Amino acid sequence: MDEKELRELLKGIKEQNISIEYGMEKLKDLPFKDLGYAVIDNHREIRVGYPEVIYCAGKTVDQVKGIVSFMLTKENNILGTRATVEMYEAIKEICPDAKYNKLSKTIIIKRKEVKEMDSYIAVITAGTSDIPVAEEAVETAKIFGNRVEKVFDVGVAGIHRLFNRLELIRGAKVIIVIAGMEGALASVIGGLVDKPVIAVPTSVGYGTSFGGLTALLSMLNSCASGISVVNIDNGFGAGYLASIINKL
Amino acid sequence: MDEKELRELLKGIKEQNISIEYGMEKLKDLPFKDLGYAVIDNHREIRVGYPEVIYCAGKTVDQVKGIVSFMLTKENNILGTRATVEMYEAIKEICPDAKYNKLSKTIIIKRKEVKEMDSYIAVITAGTSDIPVAEEAVETAKIFGNRVEKVFDVGVAGIHRLFNRLELIRGAKVIIVIAGMEGALASVIGGLVDKPVIAVPTSVGYGTSFGGLTALLSMLNSCASGISVVNIDNGFGAGYLASIINKL
Amino acid sequence: MDEKELRELLKGIKEQNISIEYGMEKLKDLPFKDLGYAVIDNHREIRVGYPEVIYCAGKTVDQVKGIVSFMLTKENNILGTRATVEMYEAIKEICPDAKYNKLSKTIIIKRKEVKEMDSYIAVITAGTSDIPVAEEAVETAKIFGNRVEKVFDVGVAGIHRLFNRLELIRGAKVIIVIAGMEGALASVIGGLVDKPVIAVPTSVGYGTSFGGLTALLSMLNSCASGISVVNIDNGFGAGYLASIINKL
Amino acid sequence: MDEKELRELLKGIKEQNISIEYGMEKLKDLPFKDLGYAVIDNHREIRVGYPEVIYCAGKTVDQVKGIVSFMLTKENNILGTRATVEMYEAIKEICPDAKYNKLSKTIIIKRKEVKEMDSYIAVITAGTSDIPVAEEAVETAKIFGNRVEKVFDVGVAGIHRLFNRLELIRGAKVIIVIAGMEGALASVIGGLVDKPVIAVPTSVGYGTSFGGLTALLSMLNSCASGISVVNIDNGFGAGYLASIINKL
Amino acid sequence: MDEKELRELLKGIKEQNISIEYGMEKLKDLPFKDLGYAVIDNHREIRVGYPEVIYCAGKTVDQVKGIVSFMLTKENNILGTRATVEMYEAIKEICPDAKYNKLSKTIIIKRKEVKEMDSYIAVITAGTSDIPVAEEAVETAKIFGNRVEKVFDVGVAGIHRLFNRLELIRGAKVIIVIAGMEGALASVIGGLVDKPVIAVPTSVGYGTSFGGLTALLSMLNSCASGISVVNIDNGFGAGYLASIINKL
Amino acid sequence: MDEKELRELLKGIKEQNISIEYGMEKLKDLPFKDLGYAVIDNHREIRVGYPEVIYCAGKTVDQVKGIVSFMLTKENNILGTRATVEMYEAIKEICPDAKYNKLSKTIIIKRKEVKEMDSYIAVITAGTSDIPVAEEAVETAKIFGNRVEKVFDVGVAGIHRLFNRLELIRGAKVIIVIAGMEGALASVIGGLVDKPVIAVPTSVGYGTSFGGLTALLSMLNSCASGISVVNIDNGFGAGYLASIINKL
Amino acid sequence: MDEKELRELLKGIKEQNISIEYGMEKLKDLPFKDLGYAVIDNHREIRVGYPEVIYCAGKTVDQVKGIVSFMLTKENNILGTRATVEMYEAIKEICPDAKYNKLSKTIIIKRKEVKEMDSYIAVITAGTSDIPVAEEAVETAKIFGNRVEKVFDVGVAGIHRLFNRLELIRGAKVIIVIAGMEGALASVIGGLVDKPVIAVPTSVGYGTSFGGLTALLSMLNSCASGISVVNIDNGFGAGYLASIINKL
Amino acid sequence: MDEKELRELLKGIKEQNISIEYGMEKLKDLPFKDLGYAVIDNHREIRVGYPEVIYCAGKTVDQVKGIVSFMLTKENNILGTRATVEMYEAIKEICPDAKYNKLSKTIIIKRKEVKEMDSYIAVITAGTSDIPVAEEAVETAKIFGNRVEKVFDVGVAGIHRLFNRLELIRGAKVIIVIAGMEGALASVIGGLVDKPVIAVPTSVGYGTSFGGLTALLSMLNSCASGISVVNIDNGFGAGYLASIINKL
Repeated sequence: MDEKELRELLKGIKEQNISIEYGMEKLKDLPFKDLGYAVIDNHREIRVGYPEVIYCAGKTVDQVKGIVSFMLTKENNILGTRATVEMYEAIKEICPDAKYNKLSKTIIIKRKEVKEMDSYIAVITAGTSDIPVAEEAVETAKIFGNRVEKVFDVGVAGIHRLFNRLELIRGAKVIIVIAGMEGALASVIGGLVDKPVIAVPTSVGYGTSFGGLTALLSMLNSCASGISVVNIDNGFGAGYLASIINKL
Repeated sequence: MDEKELRELLKGIKEQNISIEYGMEKLKDLPFKDLGYAVIDNHREIRVGYPEVIYCAGKTVDQVKGIVSFMLTKENNILGTRATVEMYEAIKEICPDAKYNKLSKTIIIKRKEVKEMDSYIAVITAGTSDIPVAEEAVETAKIFGNRVEKVFDVGVAGIHRLFNRLELIRGAKVIIVIAGMEGALASVIGGLVDKPVIAVPTSVGYGTSFGGLTALLSMLNSCASGISVVNIDNGFGAGYLASIINKL
Repeated sequence: MDEKELRELLKGIKEQNISIEYGMEKLKDLPFKDLGYAVIDNHREIRVGYPEVIYCAGKTVDQVKGIVSFMLTKENNILGTRATVEMYEAIKEICPDAKYNKLSKTIIIKRKEVKEMDSYIAVITAGTSDIPVAEEAVETAKIFGNRVEKVFDVGVAGIHRLFNRLELIRGAKVIIVIAGMEGALASVIGGLVDKPVIAVPTSVGYGTSFGGLTALLSMLNSCASGISVVNIDNGFGAGYLASIINKL
Repeated sequence: MDEKELRELLKGIKEQNISIEYGMEKLKDLPFKDLGYAVIDNHREIRVGYPEVIYCAGKTVDQVKGIVSFMLTKENNILGTRATVEMYEAIKEICPDAKYNKLSKTIIIKRKEVKEMDSYIAVITAGTSDIPVAEEAVETAKIFGNRVEKVFDVGVAGIHRLFNRLELIRGAKVIIVIAGMEGALASVIGGLVDKPVIAVPTSVGYGTSFGGLTALLSMLNSCASGISVVNIDNGFGAGYLASIINKL
Repeated sequence: MDEKELRELLKGIKEQNISIEYGMEKLKDLPFKDLGYAVIDNHREIRVGYPEVIYCAGKTVDQVKGIVSFMLTKENNILGTRATVEMYEAIKEICPDAKYNKLSKTIIIKRKEVKEMDSYIAVITAGTSDIPVAEEAVETAKIFGNRVEKVFDVGVAGIHRLFNRLELIRGAKVIIVIAGMEGALASVIGGLVDKPVIAVPTSVGYGTSFGGLTALLSMLNSCASGISVVNIDNGFGAGYLASIINKL
Repeated sequence: MDEKELRELLKGIKEQNISIEYGMEKLKDLPFKDLGYAVIDNHREIRVGYPEVIYCAGKTVDQVKGIVSFMLTKENNILGTRATVEMYEAIKEICPDAKYNKLSKTIIIKRKEVKEMDSYIAVITAGTSDIPVAEEAVETAKIFGNRVEKVFDVGVAGIHRLFNRLELIRGAKVIIVIAGMEGALASVIGGLVDKPVIAVPTSVGYGTSFGGLTALLSMLNSCASGISVVNIDNGFGAGYLASIINKL
Repeated sequence: MDEKELRELLKGIKEQNISIEYGMEKLKDLPFKDLGYAVIDNHREIRVGYPEVIYCAGKTVDQVKGIVSFMLTKENNILGTRATVEMYEAIKEICPDAKYNKLSKTIIIKRKEVKEMDSYIAVITAGTSDIPVAEEAVETAKIFGNRVEKVFDVGVAGIHRLFNRLELIRGAKVIIVIAGMEGALASVIGGLVDKPVIAVPTSVGYGTSFGGLTALLSMLNSCASGISVVNIDNGFGAGYLASIINKL
Repeated sequence: MDEKELRELLKGIKEQNISIEYGMEKLKDLPFKDLGYAVIDNHREIRVGYPEVIYCAGKTVDQVKGIVSFMLTKENNILGTRATVEMYEAIKEICPDAKYNKLSKTIIIKRKEVKEMDSYIAVITAGTSDIPVAEEAVETAKIFGNRVEKVFDVGVAGIHRLFNRLELIRGAKVIIVIAGMEGALASVIGGLVDKPVIAVPTSVGYGTSFGGLTALLSMLNSCASGISVVNIDNGFGAGYLASIINKL
């Protein structure tokens, strides 16, 4: 409820068009739907072009199905992340046109067409193993209405691979760099572009990669400027943030 | 053995009503039963309304069954935490009315009616995935004789969901806040209430959530006062402590 | 602003006693004073017997002095924690009767008499080196109107020292256990009492005590129930929480 | 050297306007100045409105002075971060109009007027102790030509302080949230706005705040979307990134 | 080869009883048998009553079988630790009287009678879940010829259980204390006895027990003296060291 | 592209033998093959005797097969590391003479004979469990054309086993020391030889070995000089680096 | 109070020689002296040859002086560890014959002659920088009545230095090994002797030595048996434990 | 003592030229000088061109002076690392021509001319703040007889600075890369050269650089091959190892 709505409400009460009881109700009634195990935010409907999002990890198949079931009533696009095949199959029962991306583990349900923007987001990976996280970012950015360019497997061990794609990278409005191991690609790209760089450490690596911690620390300590970091393997977060920036 | 009992014992010896051997026995004989692999505390029987508690993790099915078998002789309520389905099935053989909560992994055996208190404990979760830990707290608080109000999935990402339930939360005598990820809900609630807040970090999250460590650290460093913390996923501990406070 | 005040406000608007502009003002105007570098909460005045609290660490002497200067206008008791001697001396210039406790590094300014409760808080330390943290807890509990009993240097290396004081400890309504090194005292006391135990790890120790981390972890993993933990060296937090519980 | 310049160069060589030797020189001669101990990037001059930046920590006073001395020849604005008073005094000898901000430890040398943008950056702190980091972000954002709105000391322990300033925060194009301790403010703001949030953990806190690590982890694990994180106390990095985004 | 043998050897050479070639051989030929993948120490045979020991973890079934096969040629007792059922079954093929303890995962092959000492080792556990580690210590101590007294499940949560067994504990020549969670039992026993205490942290616990790290740190920081620590779950190490001390 | 080639190219353009478009192409066209999910470096073909290398972990079977399939077109030797049996079987379909080493999980495809050098690399392990990592180093060193001497299971617990092999170790040009647990073997060998020692910590151990971290830290802090360290279990890295040094 | 004393007491009560009040007193009155800030254990007097011990770190000069002042009344030897020069000077005022060892920071006050045992403790250091910790162990062992042999600076970087002293080391009844950096000396000695080895990690080193943590981890993971570990820099603990073992 | 010497010795004994006592002496007498607090290795004298090395950190001024004093008797070059100004001044008293490098904190005493090799070592730093560590490596490499080329301040934030110096870097026989913060320079150089790369993490950085740990982890996880790592700030170790490799 923003300031304007508040003023309307108070005015209605003053002019006796609105009862005190109704005012009480309105000021206490916040915009969500309580399913018992989950409270769904109805607020986002208002923002055109935004899908409903459900983070599936840690939820039971029934809970995911129940939440999607409610969301479907709103005729909005839906993005499910970290979804298992079981979840996908349960959802297909209530929504046969749901799509599942095995690599990114995302479920997409389309109800409205999404208009793509002209400016694009570059999604870059250091290696082949980083692609699942990249795909989560790509799927997220797309369902939020962004154009995406993929630049995969251009890590610094063979830096000439990166330089060949530099033009495409520099043309983006915002750049997502996804890397595991030592995560040096974020610093190298950060030193070559003037755009915001969202760095995503991945859990790719072994030994002292500590499940992505080394890449994360490396990215946080980048000697290049213009880089910020999201959680390990957080492709969705990077895709979402890139989308917000791309739409500024 | 408290001071009064000691005085009685010594008096009995002085007055020759009690033999030295008996005194020796009493002073050495502490109130427990040794099963070989487990030493059961008989002390707690005295406190009315307190159930026997068995922490099942790390024990074999046979050990759990043996312990419950002994406890049943005392006609007291029994709470088993972190119990597997296998343990539950073994117990059902000797106690067909045992109840199992799959979500919280608790076994409840009721032998005495528990009188509920008027004041209540609020059990709040940030997300849907925190519910299993919450249920362990709820089951514990209930078998210890407390009234519980559940407020689930009201994390700070959609803070209006929380504000809608604030009245219920503020009415509690003690509040349990259960959250994974960054655990910010504890600080927010701590800033909104004047009641003791028991914060329970959960292992919900990924990457740098480090199995609940981030939520734990966040809760320990809360800028709000009146918050204390128990171990990660320790729903039982929170429910037990809340029960003690609620009964003060 | 609680529900009742909201209803009054809306009623006033309806009955034309209160203007819309005033309503707008009230609903937006939250109870604090903005000093530029600090926003002081005026909310707490309402609660009788609660002092103003200022956490001095990380603030400049001028900032602390400025905040205290504003607080003095409200004729309430004031508690400053983690204050340096320099801060104390600056405050004495504007408030000559301020008291400084060198051990606990607390400043106390008394303007109202605090009525002590009957029930008391036991503050226990494992060693002599834990006393500064204990004193912070004691000063906090006292200015919030609690009776405190001190039981110092009764660590488990000489467990008979603890048993001698057990009666006094068991008589408390809530117990604060303060220990560095391995922090085992919290578990031992937790196993001996039926009262809420607030464990405060201290940075006392060397090597793998890691500035209190070992004591903290030890306390979080206590095999005894009824224990919760606050941040390392957080005497204030323990004293404040104990006060809330003592007043339930 | 971008693609267009390369094409021009090759064309010049083909048309005999440019000698091979000159081409060699151009293609090898990269845009920097080698001072022996530091290699200064001349590349940035081209981008209008961008100051020279020197990170002073870990450099000797003489090195800083030498670098500034060379930069001054380019008649560009200069920003020195993490500068000591000694460094400032050495610079004043060669540049009497240099300005020093004691709080943020930044040196500003103005040679060109910076045109401010219409859209603004909101810089928010949880507490008073976070202000030095905030000031580094503010100074950086300003010298890069941005309008800044400060919202200080609005941490979640008194969440009403924050709500009062929400309108101003929501009006920003990009938001910097600076917090130590548990860093919950980032999540709360992330849940209330639709703008990119750059979270800066600070080393404010004690015990398990681990010099800002807890705030960092908390921010990385935020349950709210649209948040990314920079290194602990990295006010400059946040100000720089916010500037890039603000200018998109 | 000790000093006496060296002197004999040199004397033999001087007196021409021993050839230079033989001396070369002796001085170079160290007492082991190389199986390619493992080099077995023949040195230990000399020490009466010491079994051959094989640490099975990380070895293939074939390697373990091969090593045992060679050891059997020496007609000595054999102790295999961390052995799987598969390893045991492979060994039974070549040694039908091998015994397997499922709890401790040890294999025992007896070829010589071991004479027990009069003094005994006390093996104490805090909980039921610590028993597997305790059994490894017990099996080790026994095959090395020690008398062992078991005191299980006497953790500090019910400290009276411990006091009842104190006499037995104090009678031991050396004490092994095995505990997970917060490991406080080591400190409590260390404060009650005058004997060397070998503390074994176990990986029993959850959350911040960090697989035994908390218990380890707790034991290293014990406020009681006379305690030393071995690696997490290292029942063999404790049993072996206790045996050396018991035989002094 | 080195300086000489660049000069040729520019000269060609100047002399009109080379078109600008071709020059553009050349300067942009870097030496790799993009398979979509992987960008294969063609650069290495030039260096005689070097195999193609594919790190298989984190790649799908199809991706590995696709990459090998392309590599086979170049008639070069191929080394696949961290390959599963499934990968090996997929590769055998397109290359029946591929060899798989189960211990080291390496795939070798030979197309050219590799000439061995005279100087050799010593590969030493502390225990039997370190052999898989050692074998990865051995396979790597061999396919890169090096002679290798294996010295396995000579850890410091029985230091005489090591001394017996010292001559062989000292004869190597470069030494790889592979050890888990406390990794002390690296220091001992470092103190006994004058050759470069590449230390490889392994994840062998339990409890506080932390998956190889303890061995890694131990090796980094070696009191002996001439030792450097690679990542935990990184047999390939050690074999590759040893090969470079051996060929100097 | 042992069983025999308890029986006497009860018998005295029964026979009316002892009053109930006296019995109450005795059973509650534990053997210590409470100074307010410290509770001194009188219990140890009984054990002949044991000095009073005071751990000075974290105590104020006045507290240390007060404790020593009380201890002096008992005419026992006194050992102060981690004492500053200031503490020593304060103690000299009340006890002019106190001795201070600057290296080990120990204060020794002799009141009774200590009879040395025949068997000896070997105290070994890896380097020169480990000597202060070694001296603390030496001073402790001596005042507890042990003969000590020092073997300093024999680290594994020059392992022949160690072998030269092996005879002396092997002659000891118990061995203390003190090492920083990678702590490999403990494993090497553990592999060469059959005596209990007490390993003391020191904070000697830099970078990833992490203040002794690497040495500690290394020692805990030793591949040699018979080694146990005390806290970093804990020379007193090692000396005390060695003394207990030496006297068995 | 090598095999040949051993044979000579035994032959001498056999032929009665050498007494048994002398043989005993020789076989026990290892090549070092015991100063009480330090055991100096005389072994290294034999290797021509190698200086005596003394690591000064953790030693007292008197100890350093005493060690140098003994070393001077051997008329060899001397390198002191991590030396303070005080140590230098004490050494100048006994050796007026000692040289001190303030940046690298090294003392150099020249007694013999060192012949430089043709091949050279490249020492590269990412930033200006890494220079002190680089200088330690340079001083070490030089006194061990190596030619060194310095390439300072070429970090990846401005990667064109690096490419300009690539020819010089590629010409080296072995390369030392010194970097703090995220340490990405090691990976980038590793991907551009075919020479052994010794990576030295430095403690340059703040926040999550954790005193060099992030750079260390980054370097250990490099996606480029041919890189190994030494301890944080270990310029000496890198210089020494590079020297060994350069001389192969």
